[in-house]
Amino acid sequence: MNLLAVLDYGSVLVFAITGALVASRAQLDLVGFAFIASLTALGGGTIRDLLLDRDPIFWIADPTYLAVAVAAALAVFFTAHLLESRRRALLWLDSLALSIAVAAGAGVAMALDQTAVIVVLMGMITGCMGGLMRDVVVGDVPVVLKQGELYVTAAFAGSATAALARHYGFDPLVTLPGCAVVTWILRAGSLGFGWHLPVYKSTPPKS
Amino acid sequence: MNLLAVLDYGSVLVFAITGALVASRAQLDLVGFAFIASLTALGGGTIRDLLLDRDPIFWIADPTYLAVAVAAALAVFFTAHLLESRRRALLWLDSLALSIAVAAGAGVAMALDQTAVIVVLMGMITGCMGGLMRDVVVGDVPVVLKQGELYVTAAFAGSATAALARHYGFDPLVTLPGCAVVTWILRAGSLGFGWHLPVYKSTPPKS
Amino acid sequence: MNLLAVLDYGSVLVFAITGALVASRAQLDLVGFAFIASLTALGGGTIRDLLLDRDPIFWIADPTYLAVAVAAALAVFFTAHLLESRRRALLWLDSLALSIAVAAGAGVAMALDQTAVIVVLMGMITGCMGGLMRDVVVGDVPVVLKQGELYVTAAFAGSATAALARHYGFDPLVTLPGCAVVTWILRAGSLGFGWHLPVYKSTPPKS
Repeated sequence: MNLLAVLDYGSVLVFAITGALVASRAQLDLVGFAFIASLTALGGGTIRDLLLDRDPIFWIADPTYLAVAVAAALAVFFTAHLLESRRRALLWLDSLALSIAVAAGAGVAMALDQTAVIVVLMGMITGCMGGLMRDVVVGDVPVVLKQGELYVTAAFAGSATAALARHYGFDPLVTLPGCAVVTWILRAGSLGFGWHLPVYKSTPPKS
Repeated sequence: MNLLAVLDYGSVLVFAITGALVASRAQLDLVGFAFIASLTALGGGTIRDLLLDRDPIFWIADPTYLAVAVAAALAVFFTAHLLESRRRALLWLDSLALSIAVAAGAGVAMALDQTAVIVVLMGMITGCMGGLMRDVVVGDVPVVLKQGELYVTAAFAGSATAALARHYGFDPLVTLPGCAVVTWILRAGSLGFGWHLPVYKSTPPKS
Repeated sequence: MNLLAVLDYGSVLVFAITGALVASRAQLDLVGFAFIASLTALGGGTIRDLLLDRDPIFWIADPTYLAVAVAAALAVFFTAHLLESRRRALLWLDSLALSIAVAAGAGVAMALDQTAVIVVLMGMITGCMGGLMRDVVVGDVPVVLKQGELYVTAAFAGSATAALARHYGFDPLVTLPGCAVVTWILRAGSLGFGWHLPVYKSTPPKS
């Protein structure tokens, strides 16, 4: 199993858990858990594969990804009540999933010898779209767009790091973990210490 | 016209009616009716075709599907006021559309000789995604995710039946109607008699 | 640079501005602006390209589109506070973007020698889907579905004009600007003078 597969499996696993946690807050049944978990876990990579015209889509080529997502949903269904605060767990797990998924997305684009711009974008899309669909489908405000937090920005910084590191000749075995770490540090800093970029503010408030 | 085409046309017709009913609740104009009807009727199959890299997409290959959806939207625009309760009609028609679409999705995957896992998934995706997009776009709580109802679960049971029946050598002419019937019985049982799986409940309630 | 590229760039630019205006209303940061701007500007054309199986997707083939969207987002971030009413600016720019995008979508389908039905649909999809995703993602009521306004209808009339004009042998250099003008007149008439088609009204109101 190569590094890309490890990243893909990792992001599927952790994103599936966040999806299942969202399903638990919406009080769905077991199959509903598996559905939201799979949508979240496989959504970002599916959009990446469609855009890059990879055929077949990664989870059609290897349904183990799906099995991982469903197993994670099952595990959460029976254990989520043990969590002190599901909202908190959700956010931190989501930050982990984001970091791994950004690296997985950037890695796939690099393996296809795409340009730096596309590498950056595929990292961002793979990282952000699964969580975005999860939140839109259940009617939550997307975590991706939470005001005053680094999220898309963290994904951007991570994939830009990957693209830069490739440009300077680093091996993917260094580049991709670096990408995940940069993404996570920024996102975690935002969750834990309130790091953020200036947000748009109109003065005085307008319609 | 073979069985698959009949199923595709059937699900397009009935889903289009549900889309138009949703449009009537949102008080759109005639073109808005056609738009939501088409999105609902063609959405699930479009995602299925994109994922399986079928080219061209079914309604690009044969625009009759689109004509059916638009005709249904038109008919509903001029007759919906005759319905006693549009909400009730919507739910029951949606259950019918779901059942046919699940069979259509599973059937296409079988015709492409996909594995059992992919057959099950394509059944579920074709059945659930059109209605999901319909509800998300107009801002309703998706029927798919209604708490304490069988929906995704019914789709899963139906497509699993199809995959199993194929495994035991049954002909698609038996398999696919069986798939639709299983899906519909579960969904109808849920609507009519409140059948459901245990939903997730945290005790005591958490954040 | 041919006419199609001009239309694509134009719609990307103007839709990106509308996306950034929506981001300003949601008080996102600079990267959030770029994200929503890109989703809005590239979304409709991406769906068009996926459906038509164009490979690569237009902004993967030429990332300048993306650069345009990001530059527009940046410009809006620093200047939106100068606008008297962002809501009003948003609606009028959106009407402009719609018109250009409908022509771009119809033009691409014509360049691929698609049938009239597909030309009409690709115009509508390219025009409407970017704005629809923009509004769904940030949780607004989609402008596309605003009750009692011409929007999808304007897109339909514009692309139908294009398909008809092609049928009667007109050159794309005439057809596509005509398509944009028809779309815009109808949409602007709806915004400025309240033009609309009869909307569905049940009498008496039902559930």
